[in-house]
Amino acid sequence: MTCIELRPIGVIRSPYKTKEETPIQGVFRPEMTGWVELYPGYGEGLKDIEGFSHIFLIYNFDRVSARAELVRPVLLDDQPHGIFACRFPSRPNSIGLTVVELFGREGSKLKVGGIDVLDNTPLLDIKPYVPRFDSFPKANEGWFKGKNERPKPPGRE
Amino acid sequence: MTCIELRPIGVIRSPYKTKEETPIQGVFRPEMTGWVELYPGYGEGLKDIEGFSHIFLIYNFDRVSARAELVRPVLLDDQPHGIFACRFPSRPNSIGLTVVELFGREGSKLKVGGIDVLDNTPLLDIKPYVPRFDSFPKANEGWFKGKNERPKPPGRE
Repeated sequence: MTCIELRPIGVIRSPYKTKEETPIQGVFRPEMTGWVELYPGYGEGLKDIEGFSHIFLIYNFDRVSARAELVRPVLLDDQPHGIFACRFPSRPNSIGLTVVELFGREGSKLKVGGIDVLDNTPLLDIKPYVPRFDSFPKANEGWFKGKNERPKPPGRE
Repeated sequence: MTCIELRPIGVIRSPYKTKEETPIQGVFRPEMTGWVELYPGYGEGLKDIEGFSHIFLIYNFDRVSARAELVRPVLLDDQPHGIFACRFPSRPNSIGLTVVELFGREGSKLKVGGIDVLDNTPLLDIKPYVPRFDSFPKANEGWFKGKNERPKPPGRE
């Protein structure tokens, strides 16, 4: 099982300094803006991104403290769920995924809305959100059905 | 800039042995099925995944041959686009993202539809697709507008 090495291409700036104040999902705080800042040498890769209203951010959960358990209670439910059936940050590979709204570009920086990551989170990739490929409005939401925003259970990340 | 190490949690089996026959996006071949096989020790993490109709697969583009250029012609367009404004496989970090339909689970294996990756692709993570968080049907599709499936341009990956 080969090990795969990744290097951050930039950093995500958000208003959230602690896990407690970071929303469980960006759609719960669509008005909160953040900035995606690419490191020097990567900005050119943003060419034509202005045409998209939404983008995927793939990032590193760099401040997880809990051990990655395969089945555990999660942020939106006290019932245990499999780690691959939830979006909990402590995972076998610490990769986060979020869709944010793209408000604008200033050189190698992107202003985004609905951000749900900790300030200074390492960015691994940006991909354009293309509704033909990525939007499935009728998908089943599994155990998330009926689970609405709530305060994060203490000590759960 | 810290280096992040990831280890595959499993492998994706698909009908596609070559890049030429692999579809550019899964929605172009929704009828093609594949299997996601978790390595021993990870299967328990699939608990409750059966409730979802769609899942995200995050995987490693392990057979890219082209250098990761920041601006380049892509699979659906001969005009050059920024690497962060396209889904081209040769990227600064070789991470792929796809949404597949979940047909069923057999122990630590998932049968999926609309698969668009090479056979034996290393799997890094699975996340449930939750339409409330992930579906934005009215998102702008930027330069993808009007770009439909076509044969992959020779030598472009």
